Amino acid sequence: MNVSCICGGHLWQVPGFTAYGTHTGLKRKRPDLTIIKSERLCSAAAVYTKNKVVAPPLLVTRAHLADGYAQAIVCNSGIANACTGTQGMINAHAMAQITAELLGLIPEDVVVASTGVIGEQLPMEKMASSIKTVAGLLGTEQGTEAAEGIMTTDTVPKEVLYTVDVGGHTVSLAGIAKGSGMIHPNMATMLAFIVTDVSCSPDVLHDALAAATDKTFNMISVDGDTSTNDMVVVLANGEAGNPPLCLGTPGFAAFSAALDAVCEDLAKRIAADGEGATKLFEVQVVNAPTVHDARAVGKAVVASSLVKAAVHGGDPNWGRIMCAAGYSGAEVDIDASRLVLCSGGECLTLFEDGTPCDYGEHEAVRLMSGSDLVFIIDFKTGSASAKAWGCDLTNEYVNINAHYRT
Amino acid sequence: MNVSCICGGHLWQVPGFTAYGTHTGLKRKRPDLTIIKSERLCSAAAVYTKNKVVAPPLLVTRAHLADGYAQAIVCNSGIANACTGTQGMINAHAMAQITAELLGLIPEDVVVASTGVIGEQLPMEKMASSIKTVAGLLGTEQGTEAAEGIMTTDTVPKEVLYTVDVGGHTVSLAGIAKGSGMIHPNMATMLAFIVTDVSCSPDVLHDALAAATDKTFNMISVDGDTSTNDMVVVLANGEAGNPPLCLGTPGFAAFSAALDAVCEDLAKRIAADGEGATKLFEVQVVNAPTVHDARAVGKAVVASSLVKAAVHGGDPNWGRIMCAAGYSGAEVDIDASRLVLCSGGECLTLFEDGTPCDYGEHEAVRLMSGSDLVFIIDFKTGSASAKAWGCDLTNEYVNINAHYRT
Repeated sequence: MNVSCICGGHLWQVPGFTAYGTHTGLKRKRPDLTIIKSERLCSAAAVYTKNKVVAPPLLVTRAHLADGYAQAIVCNSGIANACTGTQGMINAHAMAQITAELLGLIPEDVVVASTGVIGEQLPMEKMASSIKTVAGLLGTEQGTEAAEGIMTTDTVPKEVLYTVDVGGHTVSLAGIAKGSGMIHPNMATMLAFIVTDVSCSPDVLHDALAAATDKTFNMISVDGDTSTNDMVVVLANGEAGNPPLCLGTPGFAAFSAALDAVCEDLAKRIAADGEGATKLFEVQVVNAPTVHDARAVGKAVVASSLVKAAVHGGDPNWGRIMCAAGYSGAEVDIDASRLVLCSGGECLTLFEDGTPCDYGEHEAVRLMSGSDLVFIIDFKTGSASAKAWGCDLTNEYVNINAHYRT
Repeated sequence: MNVSCICGGHLWQVPGFTAYGTHTGLKRKRPDLTIIKSERLCSAAAVYTKNKVVAPPLLVTRAHLADGYAQAIVCNSGIANACTGTQGMINAHAMAQITAELLGLIPEDVVVASTGVIGEQLPMEKMASSIKTVAGLLGTEQGTEAAEGIMTTDTVPKEVLYTVDVGGHTVSLAGIAKGSGMIHPNMATMLAFIVTDVSCSPDVLHDALAAATDKTFNMISVDGDTSTNDMVVVLANGEAGNPPLCLGTPGFAAFSAALDAVCEDLAKRIAADGEGATKLFEVQVVNAPTVHDARAVGKAVVASSLVKAAVHGGDPNWGRIMCAAGYSGAEVDIDASRLVLCSGGECLTLFEDGTPCDYGEHEAVRLMSGSDLVFIIDFKTGSASAKAWGCDLTNEYVNINAHYRT
């Protein structure tokens, strides 16, 4: 598909976009507000958390994207503006209003997002000056400023840039995302913002985004908790000059492949930077009866506290993996399956046809201690597959979350 | 209902039962095998794990209880005999066979259970001598030996004795249970064995057990992992001399209340002794539209890693509780609900009608630091309620499970 990753690329390198984030005083020390702006009106698509507690900024964004178009995104970190009632709605609307005035837009073309502690009101006076600060710095970006402004307990900014050839036109796609706790996207998404210069209607953009998130953001887990504020937004400004994408065409397939790559890259970075995590691990489910079954097994394994702890300890206690597959709800026959552990280019079959294999424990411990673990679960009964990504469970996760607010 | 808890009571104090467990060499140091025996044939009922990976001992037990009767239970700890294929089935059958021969029973009247590491075969020569050792000691019990023989990472044995008046006959019920990881019973059960001298048909006994487990064992969570070996078995030998229990009678109601009490007591002990746990906490969901909704909310909250970590740190980060209620799948209106924190006889309303309450942070921290936390979630829309129990998430949980087998 000719999808290329531009190593170290940024959001503001996509033609027609600027993006900046910095410390504005909402949090004590770290960057706390980001604005992304397009020179022209964009097709916009979004997917949202399936949590029944939906934060006010998501409700405002959903209303603003009802027409399929937007031109800017404003996102603060530190306070999630969730469980905040009527005042929370007023504040989310005000964020859009203030941003729109400063950027010369109408509020309905502004996407609003917040992330941080649930159950506290936004300090709106401070917020107004914060938005003004960042709006004034748009265009001066030199690095990962925008990715930094949306971080909470993340330890590294997450930003990617890809290009793809769409019918002779080079299309750029860039995204930023934040983790790193309350990460267990449920048929929905993550807090991630993606911009592209592709020309594409809002409906077609939404189809591509929904397919990509099901395969990527929805297949990671840090702690099994689905956030109240998850969302992924894509803005497409059309500056690449390609004929508008149509479903089922080679151009759509190429763009979708690139969007999948952007989403998978960001999703893996979120899992790898899970709270307290020291190791990313991948679960590949192959030859399952249906994609639904394959995904259910993958998600159950990456979400299992016991599997995550075993990965942390380098303990090849693979029974926990088959146990998680068993309670995943998938219609699979464990007794006819095979489990393979891979790391550092080597693979070892641990379990096959209902019984433990005669592998060397020493070998298994050696592979399990690697930093690039892949578990392959082969159900031998169908042709569906899925990948999922998780991180290890560490003492640091407990330390971070026992005293998150103090 | 006249249900009495006999403090410090034991399984073998129920008329007609003996029960013993000790160290037999299956594990390095700790007790590893328990046998429970009734003098006469018992009505028997059981509920099993809903994990699709079902361990061979459960398959054997299910077959043996198909006729509704049993007379003995044998259970080893250290190796779960799960994911062990045909050899695992042969070994589980052999455990029943060996036990039956030593006790003068037929194998079909023996319940078989195993708990421990998944994916290893039982050492059957050692097992034969272990069963012989314990069978020879039946009748010499003086304390919690039987409860100790089924422990894995548990730090305390879990054993309870209750009595209840059933139509003028004093009925005794006693139970033992084990935790303390891979605890997230899924519409099924736990490893727990209960004996009673009530007179009751297998069918009626099963109805009472199923109702009790839904309210108790199914409402606890330690780590969200549903085991391959969960089961609860009840044996009723009829020695109390009451007329056989009939559904819908006062006698059945009295016995059910006592069985509920036994199960709730054991369930709370399992949660309190969760791997690495230092605190038990209770979630009371009240005025929910349906029992299904109330239970879903309760289980989601006690299973949330973020809530569990906040409980550990004494951090009143209550947004995590409402977040978990939101992703529980229950049909509830969070904006119309109230959240109350209770501890040490004091209560504080944290959230009501969609907005945070103006409570004192200092007060909330003080209550949250208590050792007897209760969270009350009032949905104000129905009349259904449920209770659930969980434990805090600590560094010790990670330490135990990173190196469980090493």
